[in-house]
Amino acid sequence: MNATASAAGIARLSTRDDAFDQRLDALLDWEGVSDQAVQTRVAEILEGVKTRGDAAVIEATNRFDRLSAKTMQELTLTPERLEQAYNGLPDEQREALTAAAGRIRRYHEHQKPESWQYTEADGTVLGQQVTPIDRAGIYVPGGKAAYPSSVLMNALPAHVAGVREIVMVVPTPDGVLNELVLAAAHLAGVDYVFTVGGAQAIAALAYGTETVPRVDKIVGPGNIYVATAKRAVFGQVGIDMIAGPSEILIVADGHTDPDWLAMDLFSQAEHDEDAQAILVSWDAEHLAAVEASIERLLPTLERADIVRASLGARGALIHCDSEQEAVTLINRIAPEHLELSVAEPERWLGNIRHAGAIFMGRYTAEALGDYCAGPNHVLPTSGTARFSSPLGVYDFQKRSSLIHCSAEGASSLGKIASVLARGESLTAHARSAEYRLKK
Amino acid sequence: MNATASAAGIARLSTRDDAFDQRLDALLDWEGVSDQAVQTRVAEILEGVKTRGDAAVIEATNRFDRLSAKTMQELTLTPERLEQAYNGLPDEQREALTAAAGRIRRYHEHQKPESWQYTEADGTVLGQQVTPIDRAGIYVPGGKAAYPSSVLMNALPAHVAGVREIVMVVPTPDGVLNELVLAAAHLAGVDYVFTVGGAQAIAALAYGTETVPRVDKIVGPGNIYVATAKRAVFGQVGIDMIAGPSEILIVADGHTDPDWLAMDLFSQAEHDEDAQAILVSWDAEHLAAVEASIERLLPTLERADIVRASLGARGALIHCDSEQEAVTLINRIAPEHLELSVAEPERWLGNIRHAGAIFMGRYTAEALGDYCAGPNHVLPTSGTARFSSPLGVYDFQKRSSLIHCSAEGASSLGKIASVLARGESLTAHARSAEYRLKK
Repeated sequence: MNATASAAGIARLSTRDDAFDQRLDALLDWEGVSDQAVQTRVAEILEGVKTRGDAAVIEATNRFDRLSAKTMQELTLTPERLEQAYNGLPDEQREALTAAAGRIRRYHEHQKPESWQYTEADGTVLGQQVTPIDRAGIYVPGGKAAYPSSVLMNALPAHVAGVREIVMVVPTPDGVLNELVLAAAHLAGVDYVFTVGGAQAIAALAYGTETVPRVDKIVGPGNIYVATAKRAVFGQVGIDMIAGPSEILIVADGHTDPDWLAMDLFSQAEHDEDAQAILVSWDAEHLAAVEASIERLLPTLERADIVRASLGARGALIHCDSEQEAVTLINRIAPEHLELSVAEPERWLGNIRHAGAIFMGRYTAEALGDYCAGPNHVLPTSGTARFSSPLGVYDFQKRSSLIHCSAEGASSLGKIASVLARGESLTAHARSAEYRLKK
Repeated sequence: MNATASAAGIARLSTRDDAFDQRLDALLDWEGVSDQAVQTRVAEILEGVKTRGDAAVIEATNRFDRLSAKTMQELTLTPERLEQAYNGLPDEQREALTAAAGRIRRYHEHQKPESWQYTEADGTVLGQQVTPIDRAGIYVPGGKAAYPSSVLMNALPAHVAGVREIVMVVPTPDGVLNELVLAAAHLAGVDYVFTVGGAQAIAALAYGTETVPRVDKIVGPGNIYVATAKRAVFGQVGIDMIAGPSEILIVADGHTDPDWLAMDLFSQAEHDEDAQAILVSWDAEHLAAVEASIERLLPTLERADIVRASLGARGALIHCDSEQEAVTLINRIAPEHLELSVAEPERWLGNIRHAGAIFMGRYTAEALGDYCAGPNHVLPTSGTARFSSPLGVYDFQKRSSLIHCSAEGASSLGKIASVLARGESLTAHARSAEYRLKK
C-alpha cells in the first residue's frame, strides 16, 4: 500500500513509508488560531458588552443574526416555552431523548468526587471539601450544528454536580428555533435560555448584564469568535477546553465487517469538512476491503459531499506492522475518539495513555457514545487528550483544602515552617508560625 | 467604626456603611490584563522560539537576564548539581525541607482518583480510566520571589500523579542561583532544570526545542509576560490557573490573641505590594485590639515597607453584624486563603461555598499551610475559587471514557441513537448504529 489516494479520495499510508512521520504530522496538523482581525473584533464586542450591557448584546445579535429585537425579553425563552417544545415532540423523539438523558445522568453520577479528611496522631485534621460552582453557562451553537445531544451532554453534568443555576445561550440566525434543542434544555434542567450567540453571548455570561446573570464557568463549543472570546475571558470565569474539529481513530484487527467500519468513518467525516477519520490495521487485505466499502457506500450518503471533502483532506487508511505499532500510533495521535474494533479490547487498555473516549469491540460504534451510551461526547480534540479529559461532573465542582491544626500539631509544624520561611526571608510568616509554638 | 484609615494605614469598613458594597468591590478589584505592548512582545518571543528553537531561547535569556550564554548546556542544570545543592544545605534547612516534602506527598496521595467501571444488565461495560500526563513543565519564578516551597508544591503532585518526566524552568537574573530552590527540585523528583524564564521559557516548554523537551502541561506562577505567554499557548499545552496577587480573609470571633492575627495579616501582606489581607469580625472591640497590635508590631517587621504599602492599598478591617453576615462575605469574596479563627470552625464548613484553602481554628496559621501542613499552597486567587481548585494530583492526570457494548446493548442503544441522529440530520451516524441492531 503506497502513500497514494484511493478512488474515494482517502489517503493510503504505511508506517514503512519513508516520509510517514511527516505525512502523519501534516494530516494531524490543526491550528485554530484567530488572526488579528478576529481578535480585534472580539475585543470590541467584549468591551461593548462589559460597559453597555444588554444594549450592546442586542445590537450585536441584531447585526450578526439578522434580527430586529428591541429588548432582551425578545431574546429570552421562558421555562414554559422549553416545556412546550418538549411536549410538542413526536413520541419517538421524546422517548429517545428521555432515555438518552437518563443514561447520561446515571453515568455521570459515578463521577461525583467525595469530600474526604483524615486525622493525624496529634489530632490535626487535613482534608478536601468538594462543592459545586454556583452558576454555569452553556454555549450551544446555532444553525446547522445545533445539536440537542450537546445540550444534554453539557447541561446534565452541571445538574448532577449540583450547580444552582444553568444558563444556556444559543444563537438563532434569522430567528429560526430548533425545537429539539429547546426540548433537550427542558429535559436537562436548564434554568434560563437566551437566544444570543457569538462573542456577545460569551461576554454577557462572563460579565453579566442587566438581564443575563454572570456565570462562574462557560462550557460548550463554538466558532472562532466564540473560541477567541472564551480565551479572552478565561480567568474572569472558568472555561472548558477550546475545541478543534472532531476526529476518530479506528484500530481494526481485520475481523469486523468492512461496511461497518466504512460507516463508522463516515459518521465522523459527515460532521464537517475539517473532521478527521483515520483507520489503522496491520491487515492490508482488510484495509483494501474497507476502502472498497467506502467507495461503494459513499455515494449513498445524504452528506456525501461533506464526507468526500473531509476524507480527502484529512482522512487516512494506515497500514502498520503490528498491534504494538498501532498502540504507538494511538498514543502519538491522542485521539478524541478511539474505536478498538478488535477481539479483546480490554487487553489493550493498559497500554493506552491518551484518548478522550475508548469505544471497545466491534459492536461499540462511536455513534452510540455520541448519543446515549452514557459517557460525555464533549471530548478533548487535536491531541489535547494528552492533558485533558472528557467534560464531566468534575468540571462543575471545585475543591477547598481543609487544615485544622491541634495545638500540638501547630507546634511541631510551626518549627518546620519557621525554618523554611526564614530560608525564604519571609519573617512575618516565620513569626506567625512561632506564635503557635508550645512554650 | 467608620470607613476611614487607621494610623497603620489599613482601611476600616463596616457592612453598615452606605457605600460598603462599592468600597469592597474597589478593594477586591484586580485586573491582571496585559496591554497591547506586552501582547506583541510576547507574541514575538513565542514565534521566535517556535521557529528558531534554542537559539531564540538563548538570545532572549541573555537579553532579559543579563547573561552571556553561548549554548543551552550553560543554561542546563544536571541532576548531580541539584543533589549537590541538597547535600550542601545546613542540616536544619535540609531536615525541614525533607519533613515538608514528606507531609506534602502524604496529603496528595489522598487525591489520587481511581479508575472505575460498571457492568449493565445486558453486559455493556461503562467506565473511566485515569492516566497521568506524560511530561509536566514547572515554572519557578526567579529573583526575589524564588521560593523552594513552591518547587515542592508544584512538582510533588506531578510526581504523585505518576508523571514520567518533570521539567523545571527558573530564570537566574545575573546568573544568581538559589541553592534552596535547587535542593527542593532534587527532593521533588524534578528530571531536568533549565535556567531560563519569561515568555521564552513558556515557549520552549510548549513547543519544545532541540534541547528542551515539549511538555503536555505547564504549571506555576510568573510575571505578566509569563501569564500572557501561558494564555497564548493554552490549547497547545494545558496550563493551570493564571495567578493574581495572593490574599487572605480572616474571620475572627474575638477570642484569638490580637497579636497572632496581626502577624497572620502581615504574613500575607509581606509577599508584595499587591497582596491583600482582610480581617472580618462582628466584635468591634476585637477589631480595635487587632488594629492596635498592627500599629505596635508593624515597625518591628523586616519587610515593614512592603506590608505598609499592601495594607494601605488593599487591606481592610471589616466590622460586620453577625456570623451569618461573615459567611455572606466569605462567599462573595471567594478568598484564596480563609482563616476561621473561631471556636468551632467545623460548624462553618457546610456554609462555605467558595475558598481555596480553609485554615480552621486559632492554631492554624496560614503560614503552616504555606510550608508544611500538607495541602497545596498553589491556590485560586482573585475570586477564582468560585470555579477552580488548589493545584493537585488531578491537575496532572486525565480521564478516558470507556464504553464496551455487548451485542444486546448495541442493539437497544442503537435504536435510541438512530432516532436522535436522524433528528440531527446525521444519517451516517444513524446507519452506523443501525448496522449493530439485532435482526
